[in-house]
Amino acid sequence: MESKFNDLKTRLAEAHDLDKLGWVLNWDQRTMMPPKGAAVRAEQKATLKKLWLEKWTSPEVGKLLDDLRPYEESLPYDSDEASLIRYARREREKLLRVPADLEAEMTRAAAIATEAWIEARKQSDFAIFLPHLQKTVDLKHKYVECFDEPDHVYDILLDDFEPGMKTAEVRAVFDDLKRDLIPLIAAVNAQVDTVSDACLRGHFPAERQRMFCLSVIERFGFRHESWRLDPTVHPFASNSCTTDIRITTKYVEDFLSPALFGSMHECGHGLYENGVSPALERTPLCRGVSLGLHESQSRMWENLVGRSRPFWKFFYPKLQAAFPEQFSAVDAETFYRAVNKVHPSLIRIEADEATYNLHIILRFELEQEIMEGKVALRDLPEVWNARMKSYLGVDVPRDADGVLQDIHWSSGYLGYFSTYSLGNIISCQIWEKALAAMPDLYEQFERGEFMALREWLRENLHRHGRKFTPKETLQKVVGGGITLGPYIRYLKSKAREMYGV
Amino acid sequence: MESKFNDLKTRLAEAHDLDKLGWVLNWDQRTMMPPKGAAVRAEQKATLKKLWLEKWTSPEVGKLLDDLRPYEESLPYDSDEASLIRYARREREKLLRVPADLEAEMTRAAAIATEAWIEARKQSDFAIFLPHLQKTVDLKHKYVECFDEPDHVYDILLDDFEPGMKTAEVRAVFDDLKRDLIPLIAAVNAQVDTVSDACLRGHFPAERQRMFCLSVIERFGFRHESWRLDPTVHPFASNSCTTDIRITTKYVEDFLSPALFGSMHECGHGLYENGVSPALERTPLCRGVSLGLHESQSRMWENLVGRSRPFWKFFYPKLQAAFPEQFSAVDAETFYRAVNKVHPSLIRIEADEATYNLHIILRFELEQEIMEGKVALRDLPEVWNARMKSYLGVDVPRDADGVLQDIHWSSGYLGYFSTYSLGNIISCQIWEKALAAMPDLYEQFERGEFMALREWLRENLHRHGRKFTPKETLQKVVGGGITLGPYIRYLKSKAREMYGV
Repeated sequence: MESKFNDLKTRLAEAHDLDKLGWVLNWDQRTMMPPKGAAVRAEQKATLKKLWLEKWTSPEVGKLLDDLRPYEESLPYDSDEASLIRYARREREKLLRVPADLEAEMTRAAAIATEAWIEARKQSDFAIFLPHLQKTVDLKHKYVECFDEPDHVYDILLDDFEPGMKTAEVRAVFDDLKRDLIPLIAAVNAQVDTVSDACLRGHFPAERQRMFCLSVIERFGFRHESWRLDPTVHPFASNSCTTDIRITTKYVEDFLSPALFGSMHECGHGLYENGVSPALERTPLCRGVSLGLHESQSRMWENLVGRSRPFWKFFYPKLQAAFPEQFSAVDAETFYRAVNKVHPSLIRIEADEATYNLHIILRFELEQEIMEGKVALRDLPEVWNARMKSYLGVDVPRDADGVLQDIHWSSGYLGYFSTYSLGNIISCQIWEKALAAMPDLYEQFERGEFMALREWLRENLHRHGRKFTPKETLQKVVGGGITLGPYIRYLKSKAREMYGV
Repeated sequence: MESKFNDLKTRLAEAHDLDKLGWVLNWDQRTMMPPKGAAVRAEQKATLKKLWLEKWTSPEVGKLLDDLRPYEESLPYDSDEASLIRYARREREKLLRVPADLEAEMTRAAAIATEAWIEARKQSDFAIFLPHLQKTVDLKHKYVECFDEPDHVYDILLDDFEPGMKTAEVRAVFDDLKRDLIPLIAAVNAQVDTVSDACLRGHFPAERQRMFCLSVIERFGFRHESWRLDPTVHPFASNSCTTDIRITTKYVEDFLSPALFGSMHECGHGLYENGVSPALERTPLCRGVSLGLHESQSRMWENLVGRSRPFWKFFYPKLQAAFPEQFSAVDAETFYRAVNKVHPSLIRIEADEATYNLHIILRFELEQEIMEGKVALRDLPEVWNARMKSYLGVDVPRDADGVLQDIHWSSGYLGYFSTYSLGNIISCQIWEKALAAMPDLYEQFERGEFMALREWLRENLHRHGRKFTPKETLQKVVGGGITLGPYIRYLKSKAREMYGV
């Protein structure tokens, strides 16, 4: 049995190698690759993906998984070995469901649709994108048909990003969130002029931003021997293994926020990957368990840590020293309020931590209505604009800043958006647990100490990787499922503090 | 037949993708990767290599190559299709000769021997390296036994780097070279103090070196849309495809030569890969044909172009402007003589273009004697030092600067060194042809124009990639085999010009 297990492990290690190389190549493409390398790189990535899929779906792996059933049952549920077999069985089953032809057609369609989306956004003309969106949705329906009939057609799409999560569960949480959030934001909106973020605009040389961001994330756990920080256009985190973590950020020289909070955000993603147990290295378990839990980590470091008063008590004098022209005349309270300003706006990726969720809920609802055929695709711009008005009180002047703003649909990523808000919600659940376990956490932050939090997260979340399902993992960290309470408490207390509402 | 050919082409394209990804990963490892990524990266590269080998040696590829024999014979010899089949047959046959176990053992032994070599060099203690060198040589003998009995045991090793080249051929050329070179260098040595390269030492800030190097290689054909130039410790050239070329250099702030001539050298390698016909992209033919021909290109741009008087007529005023503190008081002739100084020295990689060859010949001869058992490994330091004295008139103070100076043997690269000098020799053969075809080449250089040379090289050499054997390729460019005449004429004329000997 052990030799069979080792055989399985070797095959999966090779598959995992190909997967991680794909991550390194993505990083390369978005930070280093000369632009003319793109065409051949796309083929190279397709080859990697093909070989990865062949490894996973090979009859040999299937046979080994069958043979190893008694071995799996003889082992403790939470052993690395049983977890690997269990994960592999689930993953392989899912991969076998989708015919290679359909997979290839989706990849091709996404490439074409992305080109069309770029053009459509440039011209702010939804009609250019419409036929490609139609094709994407048609393919998604074909994709859904590959699986057993779900409770909701959208369940299948959600499962690709948040395995095991059901549409109904997310909807229940989001409905509650929406009910609390819409009036809260309307109330804040009436007071919006009481907070100004003008001090974040000005002149911030990229190199000085980089040095300051590094000085922050080094305290979070960024180590040059096993991390990189590089500039890119659309920031992301990637990694080759637990000891080769690559995060990226974007330096906007007239606006401090993107790099400052973006680098903390990506560092949060990096810390999750960096914290997976070394025993899981080169297995498919060596990765954060879901997008929602991943986002809980990035949002935690960006918002719960990086927008907290104790954090800035330590770092604001250092920021003033780094950018004296900008901040010597700005007091700490003004700065703190600036980075916590809530202000309804058009563009999701520029939204503050509170209004952000309504951007997500809007998309989450629209995606379901699209899949259910309740909204005609040609009417999407109109529906989008009406809902932006009703949720955020915002008028959409042009589709480029409305329904065409995100790349996700053109890439075929229907089902992805909700994980962003799930991340927000989960981050506060975990945060309350961490605060309960370490009551002096905020005092530590005031001293520039973040390692206790980092270690607690590693011990309670990161190290598990994908050994357990996202739900089992969440259960281990917070002792239950998704609940909205902590997040709503957090948002309301911030709103009270900032706007007195 | 065409569908069979397309099947073969697809399989080889996938193998080629894996090969090129290996090159990108090597580049990444030596320029970007955080050091702690190394252990897992080694496994990832091993997986790539394993899958590459599986693709090449699969029975399906064997069957296709058999079935395609009549198709190949029906096509012109120099068609892309016939060339691909021909190359694939030869490559596969060679790969099948070596058992996977032996291949794996050689890889493992090389990794261990490299660690030992690093330590041995640090302590300048050959005894530390000796058992590992013994193991390497033993494995090389096993490797040789995988093939049909050669004329000379060393032929098999040479063939890995310069396919089709025989030991006897190289020896004949090197013997002639040695006979001319030893007295020439002795004569130069007597006059060595008449030339000073002191002006190349001083203070050269890395960023200004980078800007100047870029200004040179941009005129050679470096384009930012499809090239990169990055710093590294041991410079090299790599590429992902013909439109993604990555060269590296090392900026030594108190010595101008390494980055200046090194970047021209690597650019020469890059131009070869960049110049392969786009029709060969994603086939195993898409690569320079041998190390010797590759080196002919790097040496040509480094020495025949970059150390020529017309080149510096154009660039020296620009160099003076870039480093006024260093060069405003140095006249053009002094500078020209400095970069052409010949001076016997200890270390191969620091040697000038003339003495360099004696470093190579020494290694080429020793490697044969090692494989023939004519020299006992424990006596190597002594033999090395005696020969350095006799060839270059140089005393070796310590093994770290003698027999332990190169990484090649620890990496298992016996047979590699000779390609460096073959490159020198071939570069001058090609140069005479280029000059005959473009008599105004030097006038072009004086105007900073290098595109005619680049296009001539692309048309006559680069575009062929690996369609033909190295010998066939050389035949196409110069109309014959390796001959020493042009190189000796070049070295003698430089010696006369510089030292009056």
